[in-house]
Amino acid sequence: MCAAAPSLLFYADTHASRDLLYFGRFECHDPFIAFEVGGKKVAVLNALEFGRGLKESAFDEILSLETLQSELRVRYPDTPRFGPADIIALLGTKLGIGSWRVPEEFPAGLLERLRARHLRVEVAAEAVLPAREIKTAREAAAIRAGNRVAAAGFVAAEGLLRRAKIAGKKLVLDGRPLTSERVRLAIEIACLEAGGLALDTIVAGGDQACDPHCRGQGPLRANALIIVDIFPRHTASGYHGDMTRTYLKGRASAEQRALVEAVAAAQKAARRVLRAGVISAAVHQECVNVFAARGYETKATPKGSVGFFHGTGHGLGLAVHEAPRVSAPVQEPLKQGAVVTVEPGLYYPGLGGCRIEDVAWLTETGHQLLSKHPYAWEIG
Amino acid sequence: MCAAAPSLLFYADTHASRDLLYFGRFECHDPFIAFEVGGKKVAVLNALEFGRGLKESAFDEILSLETLQSELRVRYPDTPRFGPADIIALLGTKLGIGSWRVPEEFPAGLLERLRARHLRVEVAAEAVLPAREIKTAREAAAIRAGNRVAAAGFVAAEGLLRRAKIAGKKLVLDGRPLTSERVRLAIEIACLEAGGLALDTIVAGGDQACDPHCRGQGPLRANALIIVDIFPRHTASGYHGDMTRTYLKGRASAEQRALVEAVAAAQKAARRVLRAGVISAAVHQECVNVFAARGYETKATPKGSVGFFHGTGHGLGLAVHEAPRVSAPVQEPLKQGAVVTVEPGLYYPGLGGCRIEDVAWLTETGHQLLSKHPYAWEIG
Repeated sequence: MCAAAPSLLFYADTHASRDLLYFGRFECHDPFIAFEVGGKKVAVLNALEFGRGLKESAFDEILSLETLQSELRVRYPDTPRFGPADIIALLGTKLGIGSWRVPEEFPAGLLERLRARHLRVEVAAEAVLPAREIKTAREAAAIRAGNRVAAAGFVAAEGLLRRAKIAGKKLVLDGRPLTSERVRLAIEIACLEAGGLALDTIVAGGDQACDPHCRGQGPLRANALIIVDIFPRHTASGYHGDMTRTYLKGRASAEQRALVEAVAAAQKAARRVLRAGVISAAVHQECVNVFAARGYETKATPKGSVGFFHGTGHGLGLAVHEAPRVSAPVQEPLKQGAVVTVEPGLYYPGLGGCRIEDVAWLTETGHQLLSKHPYAWEIG
Repeated sequence: MCAAAPSLLFYADTHASRDLLYFGRFECHDPFIAFEVGGKKVAVLNALEFGRGLKESAFDEILSLETLQSELRVRYPDTPRFGPADIIALLGTKLGIGSWRVPEEFPAGLLERLRARHLRVEVAAEAVLPAREIKTAREAAAIRAGNRVAAAGFVAAEGLLRRAKIAGKKLVLDGRPLTSERVRLAIEIACLEAGGLALDTIVAGGDQACDPHCRGQGPLRANALIIVDIFPRHTASGYHGDMTRTYLKGRASAEQRALVEAVAAAQKAARRVLRAGVISAAVHQECVNVFAARGYETKATPKGSVGFFHGTGHGLGLAVHEAPRVSAPVQEPLKQGAVVTVEPGLYYPGLGGCRIEDVAWLTETGHQLLSKHPYAWEIG
């Protein structure tokens, strides 16, 4: 007797598990069971999702949760209520699935309940859907569409900054202070109109921008660097764009100019070596070298780090952050077809922060940019 | 020697784990370690998040991931790279934490790696933060604010429907067909302007609405029921609203009118018994009874179910769907301070779908509505 390979098994909602979204091409806000058996993708959906699953998903088969629950009630008439472990055990019996393989992120509680039923379940040490890291032309086009949405956001932000008046250190537009919130609202509306949804957009000026994930709040200041980072989901495809531009309304100081030029140079240096086969850490090191050569120090302080203290980039697709990482600890080569951001940044409270981010699709000889928007940053 | 209680431990991003968001009041898109020790809440953040964590979060202490990694490098100079299991093991040693308790949704892979290091880890069988189910006055106010955002969306949708002209079976606005997409865009913009973000808003007409989670697409039709379900996140607080109204542009048939009246009556019947202490299933049964008395049958078909085939409601807060559920299988009493939706619906392809949803905060004697918007549904 030959043991069949274990069946891949998911139990998640597709917000928490983008692997499951990739697997079934079906968005669902509540956790559900999905698995692979004999090359077929199968989902177990409740009545609320069943009809939609038939119409919208890429599953080869949809089983009714309520029907399986009825079968369990016949088998175990004294059990008041059945959970996912009961359903999975029943599926194993019915379909002759002897062992399961679950992703790293599978819920620990369910794993324990399955094993308590003596089911054989192994937790995968590697990505369960490695193909997700390699983007097809269609996926690259979807990411490009996501970045077109982001670019519409930059156009809106630049419009407000251009129209704003400088009053001392303040920026005023239509008689009111120009705030991070107002710029973010304009970006979000522009993204919606361009066919995407921008979640948690960053519009952070001055020292706020020195916390790279600070969303930004309150009045924006003249002559201060403003980081704008937009990573919208393209509604039609579900894929994300992710771009960053840094602006300054007014006149930049020599130090600010040098900072922005250093970040732009670091991005160029990283892009010069960015291709399939290059070691991830080596791409990151290019940025580190540019900053070191120009005298920009990176160090930790009790209030947080200064300098260049994040990775150079990350994979992009159905999730904003996914494999692969482009950063110092990653000694593996980048793969052909991977899509990664290239986003060096420098952050010094007092001087401000700058980050420039584009998106690259890796080929054997280099990469193709999937993002496009001008880099002009000083707005008079 | 007295064994200390196990320390609660998380490893998640706050999109996937709203418990972790509740625990630390800190949004983070990448997974991080957080735990409780000696009554203090502690997070381990990398350099990218560290400074923001200090400023924005409710953690009592923030540890630097890089500092802990440096300690590990000194202890184990031959190990090239350290993961969360190494960090957690180190924390256990340094802080004298003898055992850990993790939530049901904790990643299975990390659980296995912790146990492979002989750490004592138990997976909680119950909610690890039961207080999350009981909303404070402040949380109720935030949910109310979320519903004010949703109501702004309904105002926008009604505006478009009112302005639309009927041309045969079609709806036309400003010379173009009125589509689900156009109405959704208007809702999303109105929600942004009202201070929230509406994700996956449903605007589904005719038979599309018979899949209750179908988002809706293409031209809306005259004299057809249109379900609009808006569940925005209130940006300032992170809490969600969740409301549904059903509309019809044109003239309703007697059958459509009866359907809408039945759903409204079911919602009233459920609300009549809705208070702390009532059994969840009993609230749901009120809706079932109203529909049965009026002759509305619920049954499964190969293409999906018809009738009333979802629960009456769900908890609402930092997540759109959270504890408790208000549905047939739940035999537990609802708790004082819980916030639940009340959203019966009926769905019959050919006739269409109707759902009406409001949000209630449970008291000893009844409930307080946290949602407010008129129920007028026929738009001439």
